Amino acid sequence: MVLKSISFVLIINYNKMSFMILVMRRGKLFVVGIGPGRHEHMTFRAKQAIEESDIVVGYDTYISLVEDLIAGKLVYRYAMTQEVERANQAISLAEEGNIVSLVSSGDPGIYGMVGLIYEILADKGWDKENGIYLECVPGVSSLNSCAALIGSPLMTDFAVVSMSDLLVPWDMIIKRVEAAAQGDYVTVIYNPASKKRVHQLEDTREIFLKYRNPSTPVAIVKGAYRESQEQVLTTLDQMLEHKDLLGMITTVIIGNSATFNYKGMMINPRGYKSKYELIKNVH
Amino acid sequence: MVLKSISFVLIINYNKMSFMILVMRRGKLFVVGIGPGRHEHMTFRAKQAIEESDIVVGYDTYISLVEDLIAGKLVYRYAMTQEVERANQAISLAEEGNIVSLVSSGDPGIYGMVGLIYEILADKGWDKENGIYLECVPGVSSLNSCAALIGSPLMTDFAVVSMSDLLVPWDMIIKRVEAAAQGDYVTVIYNPASKKRVHQLEDTREIFLKYRNPSTPVAIVKGAYRESQEQVLTTLDQMLEHKDLLGMITTVIIGNSATFNYKGMMINPRGYKSKYELIKNVH
Repeated sequence: MVLKSISFVLIINYNKMSFMILVMRRGKLFVVGIGPGRHEHMTFRAKQAIEESDIVVGYDTYISLVEDLIAGKLVYRYAMTQEVERANQAISLAEEGNIVSLVSSGDPGIYGMVGLIYEILADKGWDKENGIYLECVPGVSSLNSCAALIGSPLMTDFAVVSMSDLLVPWDMIIKRVEAAAQGDYVTVIYNPASKKRVHQLEDTREIFLKYRNPSTPVAIVKGAYRESQEQVLTTLDQMLEHKDLLGMITTVIIGNSATFNYKGMMINPRGYKSKYELIKNVH
Repeated sequence: MVLKSISFVLIINYNKMSFMILVMRRGKLFVVGIGPGRHEHMTFRAKQAIEESDIVVGYDTYISLVEDLIAGKLVYRYAMTQEVERANQAISLAEEGNIVSLVSSGDPGIYGMVGLIYEILADKGWDKENGIYLECVPGVSSLNSCAALIGSPLMTDFAVVSMSDLLVPWDMIIKRVEAAAQGDYVTVIYNPASKKRVHQLEDTREIFLKYRNPSTPVAIVKGAYRESQEQVLTTLDQMLEHKDLLGMITTVIIGNSATFNYKGMMINPRGYKSKYELIKNVH
């Protein structure tokens, strides 16, 4: 129990005995998305939430990205795989009356930590009015970042699919890939593969080739807005030739039947029918 | 031509004649997403881009949201329907050597203005190296905002579909809705309907009822993070009973087969198999 979490102390004298009652303040848990990695794409609310917190919890790499904001705070750094521990730690600390930020990159609401937080709280019978104050601070997710860097692929309907089969069976993922390909969705792929494990992306490519032209533009963006940023605009046909770009922080965007490559930028038309009307003399 | 756009003036005397050469600076166009409306969910980069600009162009309502950042700047305010004019205006001003911000709410990379900008520039033969400097500043889009407010619906694969049939034929949209329903995608619906025109949402509901339980949770979020914010968590069965919430700034999220309603919050499990492992004693 951190002392800050005590709101006030009541001392009651009754019948020659003294009772000391510690009144705890209501704990707060901010689940904070810090965006793609550089401070500049973080929101003001994210910074404010971290600054307001006594305690910061997160995966070590994410904590490092906000090192300058956490001086003087109690910090719990976790390894990559300890998601359930991280979530429980953050909740317990908030339940004790602390103000806690659980930080992660991107948006915690998109394949992020906030889901696990709600699942655990639901198991505990939490409710909004009487339980800890919970706020998910949305951020710029990989789909927003990668689209911004590669052009304008998300001007039309799109599907977002994670290739990670740790938590979802592969046959379910494949069923979704098929539906996205069939529905002519621009398709954003999270966790496409690791350097050694690319069968998911190979299978996905095969399915798309049943419905789309081999020349369909495919973007591979690694480490968007980070030091390691790399991007390539290739095609469905040749997308597997860039295995060196695949990994934990890579996102793949497969175009739909209308997507085109303009000098290395991936563009989706909004559907304006007459090209002639596009350029207007404004002076 | 704004005088600021002149970088320097060269005066050459040759054979008793004087030549004055105006050297223009290279123009810049920032296509800026300011997030859901309140400054707190804007990114630092968005603010910086607006501050760096000489000229701000945008739909009148969006301009009003950043009124405090634009003092002393030249401002072009447009009505809702003038998207092509807005885009051409912003490009022309940048081509003249100005630093221009074209602002919009949410993320300009998701059904936003950056697509039109690229389409017009491609028509003009623009290239990255010699043309105007172009930067899309990603922001918190409706899908990020609405998910954060309603719980954790986007912990699993999701499809994003716009119901607007102004630019995309309705039979294409219906095909995509069918694919999303079939693929058990959580489905985020942009531009669901206006108060008077709800047939798109009615048709969409009919299609989803072929594949999902009538009790499937459906979130309707209006004006996320704005003064007018309202949200309801209903079901596929009863979703049409909330027509008063539908409109230009409403987003609908239809859950998948695993989505549940926990005391008004929309939760998607991440797929962790054993509920027992969720709660861990961390002390």
